[in-house]
Amino acid sequence: MSSHLAPHLLVKKYGGTSVGSIERIEALADRLVRETQNGPPPIIVVSAMSGETNRLIALAEKIDPDYRGPAYDMLIASGEQVAISLLSMALKKRNINAQPMLGHQVGIRTDSTFAKARIQTIDVEPLIKLIANGIIPVVAGFQGVDADDNITTLGRGGSDTTAVALAAALKAHLKPQGGDCDCEIFTDVPAVFTADPRLVQKARELKTISSEEMMEMAALGSKVLHIRCVEIGAKHDVKIHLRSTFEERTGTWIVPGTAEQGPHNMQLNIEEPVVSAVTHDANTAVFTLFPVPAGPQFLASLFQNLAAKGVVVDIITSSETAEGTRLSFSVTKEDIPLSKQVLKTALTANIKTELAEGRAKISVVGVGMRNHPGVAARFFSVLATQNVSVQLVTTSEIKISAVIDGNDLERAAKALHTEFELDA
Amino acid sequence: MSSHLAPHLLVKKYGGTSVGSIERIEALADRLVRETQNGPPPIIVVSAMSGETNRLIALAEKIDPDYRGPAYDMLIASGEQVAISLLSMALKKRNINAQPMLGHQVGIRTDSTFAKARIQTIDVEPLIKLIANGIIPVVAGFQGVDADDNITTLGRGGSDTTAVALAAALKAHLKPQGGDCDCEIFTDVPAVFTADPRLVQKARELKTISSEEMMEMAALGSKVLHIRCVEIGAKHDVKIHLRSTFEERTGTWIVPGTAEQGPHNMQLNIEEPVVSAVTHDANTAVFTLFPVPAGPQFLASLFQNLAAKGVVVDIITSSETAEGTRLSFSVTKEDIPLSKQVLKTALTANIKTELAEGRAKISVVGVGMRNHPGVAARFFSVLATQNVSVQLVTTSEIKISAVIDGNDLERAAKALHTEFELDA
Repeated sequence: MSSHLAPHLLVKKYGGTSVGSIERIEALADRLVRETQNGPPPIIVVSAMSGETNRLIALAEKIDPDYRGPAYDMLIASGEQVAISLLSMALKKRNINAQPMLGHQVGIRTDSTFAKARIQTIDVEPLIKLIANGIIPVVAGFQGVDADDNITTLGRGGSDTTAVALAAALKAHLKPQGGDCDCEIFTDVPAVFTADPRLVQKARELKTISSEEMMEMAALGSKVLHIRCVEIGAKHDVKIHLRSTFEERTGTWIVPGTAEQGPHNMQLNIEEPVVSAVTHDANTAVFTLFPVPAGPQFLASLFQNLAAKGVVVDIITSSETAEGTRLSFSVTKEDIPLSKQVLKTALTANIKTELAEGRAKISVVGVGMRNHPGVAARFFSVLATQNVSVQLVTTSEIKISAVIDGNDLERAAKALHTEFELDA
Repeated sequence: MSSHLAPHLLVKKYGGTSVGSIERIEALADRLVRETQNGPPPIIVVSAMSGETNRLIALAEKIDPDYRGPAYDMLIASGEQVAISLLSMALKKRNINAQPMLGHQVGIRTDSTFAKARIQTIDVEPLIKLIANGIIPVVAGFQGVDADDNITTLGRGGSDTTAVALAAALKAHLKPQGGDCDCEIFTDVPAVFTADPRLVQKARELKTISSEEMMEMAALGSKVLHIRCVEIGAKHDVKIHLRSTFEERTGTWIVPGTAEQGPHNMQLNIEEPVVSAVTHDANTAVFTLFPVPAGPQFLASLFQNLAAKGVVVDIITSSETAEGTRLSFSVTKEDIPLSKQVLKTALTANIKTELAEGRAKISVVGVGMRNHPGVAARFFSVLATQNVSVQLVTTSEIKISAVIDGNDLERAAKALHTEFELDA
């Protein structure tokens, strides 16, 4: 890409393990020296040293587990501040002119939702100025600044969000000159797989995946990338290259829209597969309430109460029986105590509550499903052959999900992976 | 002071031990609740949790022990960021509306001498605005921001400097309305003593001391307050109250000018004592060079070389002998390796170097010396009676210092303390 005359930049994001110790930071600096010799000018984004954010959160929770506000965000933002300072020093030692930049110095403006702020605008001028002077910006991920100059933090996956948002802003800035900006995200896994390789040994690496599929996978339990950063990439047409922190080889390109629009040097999927990946979430629980009042009123107020407490309800089904309406919904394991609390106060005495723990959600995802009918039939027939009973189901244009018993998860995942021709 | 109609504010500075753990932070918050009920509106300044700055410096030095620049200051400034966040949270838990403020948020502008920046201006508007809204600012000590928006740090004693500089700026702002702002500095010691109580058991606490004397004491080895903050207090007419972190009682007022100008509620020294305190510095070493070229050229270049390496030379004497010029100078123990390095390259082979380690500097300080001749005679006569030999001597209008053998220090300190009527 460096052969282009038009300005091409590259945002490179490294997670906490990449800067987890001084030795790791030195190794990362060595790698950056090698990579920046041939590549486009980089903008580096880093997370806090691994364990540091948790250490800071533990300090805060010792004082007040419920407090969220400016002081909390200022506290946990210090982790990234330490990491960018140390990496900049390691680069300077290697005669690379690097400058650490905090959220407010980059001009990453957010709203004031502390602990999970959303980026509103980015002023790329400070970055462009540094790059024009041959200086590599080392940007603190996960943080921004609100209209009152308070430090804010972006919540889970925040550093990935910072990286993709920076790439989006830089791309918009460079586009009129014919330039571009991609985003590399270095993680503990070398690529996006057709299934979790720990569960399905025959899982393959994907060379490319559409951001639409990636968003579904993230929503369905894939931990590889947070849905927010994929969303921003999709919305602003930023190509994301997910790569290994530990190996210097290509990983998976997450490309806006469908796979055919993918970038240079990318293996195109001439014959688009029906299903791109099998995804799962092992931490699912199902509440079943019976009998509940018929009609939307009861449901609306129940789910409002759950949302107010921060419980994310995933799949909801309700069925009418002769004895009354039966309502089931799934939540993640972590939300069980909160859900119980809400149900205790929201339900009248005559409604019985059952909790099924140890459940798992298994899904198949693929933009190809749009053009290939009969995927649902194949999906359920595989589960039937494997003797896996299905408790809840939900489908969209490009995915099918089922909540099943956790003990059946591995068997179901392997069988679906084979059925949809994903095996290596 | 709260009975005044004119606006009176109070800057309160707490060191690392006051915020050394979550328990200490909670205890400090309790104390602040009590103190702010009756006192003037406070502006709180805190240092990093004890040990934290050293931990961060150790990380930096593992990468590059020699680097000083923006990344270094950004790194070590994170310590105060953590402390103000946690203290603000602890205050909020007690229904006190507190807001953590970083150097750039307060508007503490410094020069760009990283690791030991000097404060140039402070914009008090952000603080005044908070206070007017009933919010207590919790300000990060030790840090500021330069003209390019880089985070800077103020070097040793930096948080004390922040506190006194804030008080100075607030005082200047309030003066036209007849208001005022003092500065309380809470430390591990309860007051300024007439001598170090660990050395001289009969040492007494001073109710008041002039900033002029305090500056001499700091320069002469007293660790109680850094000379920079006393200087700022003297220059901007800020009264500093040095108090104990651990006990809730008054300590020592350090008042600009001479003691008679002291503030309200202060015991005045009707009969000013000749000597206010005996001060010492146990970490002194003396280099003696012989023979050195006569004339100022050699001295100028030698001391320039030492200064360039950051060696602080304290007392210098040179004496002409029949065999040539003999030059002696004292440095602190820590600067011995650097000094040796400089001497090795700066000296020609014929100049012999002697190093006397384990030396101590003993001093008497007092603005009363101006009006009482004969102090020097009493000083040397005490040392003679105690059989203490004097290696180097320096005097000013308000102090006499002598470098002696470290083994003689305690005996000399006790005898001088008695001679100048300081014993309890």
